[in-house]
Amino acid sequence: MSETISATRKSRRRARGGDGNPRSGAPGQNPHLEVPFITRGIPTYDLLNADSLERIEKTADRILAEIGIEFRDDSETVRLFREAGGQVTELDKDRWNIRFEPGMIREILATAPARFTQHARNPAKSVEIGGDAVVFAPSYGSPFVMDLDKGRRYGTIEDFRNFVKLAQSSPWLHHSGGTICEPTDIAVNKRHLDMVYAHIRYSDRAFLGSITAPERAEDSIEMCRILFGADFVDRNCVVMGNFNTTSPLVLDGVTTQGIRAYAAAGQGSIHLPFLLGGAVSPLTMAGSVAQCLAESMTSCALTQLVRPGAPAVLAAFLSTMSLRSGSPTFGTPEPALGSLVMGQLARRLNMPLRCAGNFSTSKLPDAQAMQQSMMSMMSAVHCGANYILHSAGFLDGLLSMSYEKFMLDADLCGALHAYIKGVDVTEDTLGFDALAEKGPGEHLFSSAHTLRHYQTAYWDSALDDNQPWETWDERGGIDSATRANARWKASLESYEAPALDPGIDDALRDFMETKKASMADAWY
Amino acid sequence: MSETISATRKSRRRARGGDGNPRSGAPGQNPHLEVPFITRGIPTYDLLNADSLERIEKTADRILAEIGIEFRDDSETVRLFREAGGQVTELDKDRWNIRFEPGMIREILATAPARFTQHARNPAKSVEIGGDAVVFAPSYGSPFVMDLDKGRRYGTIEDFRNFVKLAQSSPWLHHSGGTICEPTDIAVNKRHLDMVYAHIRYSDRAFLGSITAPERAEDSIEMCRILFGADFVDRNCVVMGNFNTTSPLVLDGVTTQGIRAYAAAGQGSIHLPFLLGGAVSPLTMAGSVAQCLAESMTSCALTQLVRPGAPAVLAAFLSTMSLRSGSPTFGTPEPALGSLVMGQLARRLNMPLRCAGNFSTSKLPDAQAMQQSMMSMMSAVHCGANYILHSAGFLDGLLSMSYEKFMLDADLCGALHAYIKGVDVTEDTLGFDALAEKGPGEHLFSSAHTLRHYQTAYWDSALDDNQPWETWDERGGIDSATRANARWKASLESYEAPALDPGIDDALRDFMETKKASMADAWY
Repeated sequence: MSETISATRKSRRRARGGDGNPRSGAPGQNPHLEVPFITRGIPTYDLLNADSLERIEKTADRILAEIGIEFRDDSETVRLFREAGGQVTELDKDRWNIRFEPGMIREILATAPARFTQHARNPAKSVEIGGDAVVFAPSYGSPFVMDLDKGRRYGTIEDFRNFVKLAQSSPWLHHSGGTICEPTDIAVNKRHLDMVYAHIRYSDRAFLGSITAPERAEDSIEMCRILFGADFVDRNCVVMGNFNTTSPLVLDGVTTQGIRAYAAAGQGSIHLPFLLGGAVSPLTMAGSVAQCLAESMTSCALTQLVRPGAPAVLAAFLSTMSLRSGSPTFGTPEPALGSLVMGQLARRLNMPLRCAGNFSTSKLPDAQAMQQSMMSMMSAVHCGANYILHSAGFLDGLLSMSYEKFMLDADLCGALHAYIKGVDVTEDTLGFDALAEKGPGEHLFSSAHTLRHYQTAYWDSALDDNQPWETWDERGGIDSATRANARWKASLESYEAPALDPGIDDALRDFMETKKASMADAWY
Repeated sequence: MSETISATRKSRRRARGGDGNPRSGAPGQNPHLEVPFITRGIPTYDLLNADSLERIEKTADRILAEIGIEFRDDSETVRLFREAGGQVTELDKDRWNIRFEPGMIREILATAPARFTQHARNPAKSVEIGGDAVVFAPSYGSPFVMDLDKGRRYGTIEDFRNFVKLAQSSPWLHHSGGTICEPTDIAVNKRHLDMVYAHIRYSDRAFLGSITAPERAEDSIEMCRILFGADFVDRNCVVMGNFNTTSPLVLDGVTTQGIRAYAAAGQGSIHLPFLLGGAVSPLTMAGSVAQCLAESMTSCALTQLVRPGAPAVLAAFLSTMSLRSGSPTFGTPEPALGSLVMGQLARRLNMPLRCAGNFSTSKLPDAQAMQQSMMSMMSAVHCGANYILHSAGFLDGLLSMSYEKFMLDADLCGALHAYIKGVDVTEDTLGFDALAEKGPGEHLFSSAHTLRHYQTAYWDSALDDNQPWETWDERGGIDSATRANARWKASLESYEAPALDPGIDDALRDFMETKKASMADAWY
């Protein structure tokens, strides 16, 4: 038997017979790590040198100056950019190309805050977006949901509420997210009301509002005014909208009108190019990142033209495709590298960044799911992303929200709290006394140092099985997806809604009812 | 439906109807990434500042100066360290404590090479150990093996040969490893002969020899002399031994005699403290790393006293334990951070590093397995580790070698070839022309840039399912572990042994037979 195994066995034997003080309580309790948002204790991982970064920035500038961005169906946005110095070419009645001199967009962005607070209805749960703050939020936008019992089906408002409750119940997420899944049982023109209401009613964390139409953006903000008061909303960021560019190099009118609505109200907005390399951006990652920077900067800049100082978040969703089948691929190595570069570019711009998440193309919460998720999620953590949407639940190339994957991802988010905290180097943590107390060859279970640190030294997972094989086998030999299945049911079972002022609740319901009564159902 | 999903769908539609040139051939073919070992294109990730690193180094020096290392059952090693200036205290007849003035061990290490070549019998597969080179090797030391068909059982020589063949068949591993699993059907005092022979016969890559007894180390080297010629072996590193310290702070006689055997023959050795925090090292990671440095440096130093210039590899196996059950835990966040620090310390010493690997405590190739593996493996990749043992097959807290996990890990190692390559920033990869050719709103499938890069831009996994859900479902809805099960069987089926000179083969078999006939079976 090898030295390695002998050591493991010896340690296990010692551990069981040891006189140390084992941690008690249910697994997954790590109160010392619970925070409303994470403050980085580890540095960012800088992939490229300054020269390469400048070349990417110059390419972004060149894209904006020589190719330009196409705007559609929103003459007000065109007016704003023209006044700011953009060179407008009318392509037809509702389409314009605008080119920007190198540096112009960066100048417009100078008023954008480097860091801001998004207020939660529970002030203890407000989050910071930017700088060394890191915020985890659930996945966003899947039409389907899946679990191990019922398989894959279209999402409903019940699923939506379930995921809001699961997120609220996890200490390792900080934000309630937005369209966690599409509630396809509610008309498209009305479901935003139910989604915003569910975030407010079943969570006390910050959340994202609707962006699918300008009036739905306005409704989202109006519901926040009912919740927080109009004055507070005018002076503070309480909601954000997550906007996609129409890559390559297009901003459509629904998007720009929505961006203007959030910015005019002083609310936050996220500006996301969803770049599937080879389809809507260059196949090579340097080119995808340059385009991403050009698109996201331009989209962010619109906020500053509407209301200087409005919170805006640079964003990147980089993905690849299978060049055999044409299917999108997620959790692959190249976008992970691209995310690291985006982190550097965001810091050079001094703007907050949304980037990556727990991406996967797997259809099950299996080995592939977590391998791909980790490839993507570790890049988010290392690149310095501030707002990490898609932190929990992502499967099936974003088409499905998985109940089990949600629990696996949330547990991983907990582990990342320990990781992002970093290594503390002090006389105490250097532990010389622990070794000196016992000397060579003696175990440290009962050392004063061990007793002092055993409750906080290590992340304790709620889901991972760390038992000996025999114990695991006796208990049924269950895989982690099956454990996650039991865990989400238990979490929903024990969920308790945070208190909400009944007067506010009534006002929100009245607002919804009035809005819903004012229009016929529409399914597009 | 959200913007995000619309974009995905649109892209998928475009992809399938696109006029691009899809990549053909079987999945997992990435010839442009195949190399005998990886040369880093990405920087190392430096976690701590110089001040913190110095504090850790000073603590290591203080451990060596004030507590010392205990040596057992090897008076020759004690003689060597005494002559080099160590302060020896005899504890009893066969036990000595040796203390070292601060800096003494570092001075002894000055003759250790920063980088060296380990020769393979196929010269095209020789590997570099050190500097910016990265070498992946299979897992090491499990008494059990497992697969989805037969479950967990003791390993046999047939399993051992199977894993050598699977490693040889993967382009994403570079080294054949050592005790891939324990061949428990062969007597303990003879199995090293069969293991070394299997590495030589079924692989043409570099490998590790035996370390479980000095005479077994000598046999390993002798078999290499038959393979490479005695002169070549004396002048080059062709085999390495992987030695564990007996933590905390002990080097036993079997280990030191083995180290002396490899060093005297000019062969490589790896010097591994296996530190289970709270059991055999301080619970806090700064302390574990300081102890790791002290132990590994001292073990490495012995090689330089035996033969200055002998290749030696600093090493770290950092792990935690469940503080509720006392079980060891692997793939947790704290050791990942510790590995990043060890990388920095190894660079400051200018020595090669073995560190981390695809660690997990899971008993199945499931979501937990790959989540934990990635936490550990990404730290190996980021910390700048040069030799990454346990790159494939590790499950069950190192007690089991898994056939399916081996395939999943090997595929991940392929993805890491793409990751470690980094981002190439050139006029071509910046892809301005690709966007200029088509302009805003137009897909890039048929752009000249896409056609030029589609075969090499993205990692193509052999195992991941990236199909649309419907296709995946029609094909049986198979999870990744089940795909890996089919894949290892297919790989063994198509395995072809590399040619070996029949005269050398005969000589190796003669050596084994003579050795085996010379002693009775022993099972310890």
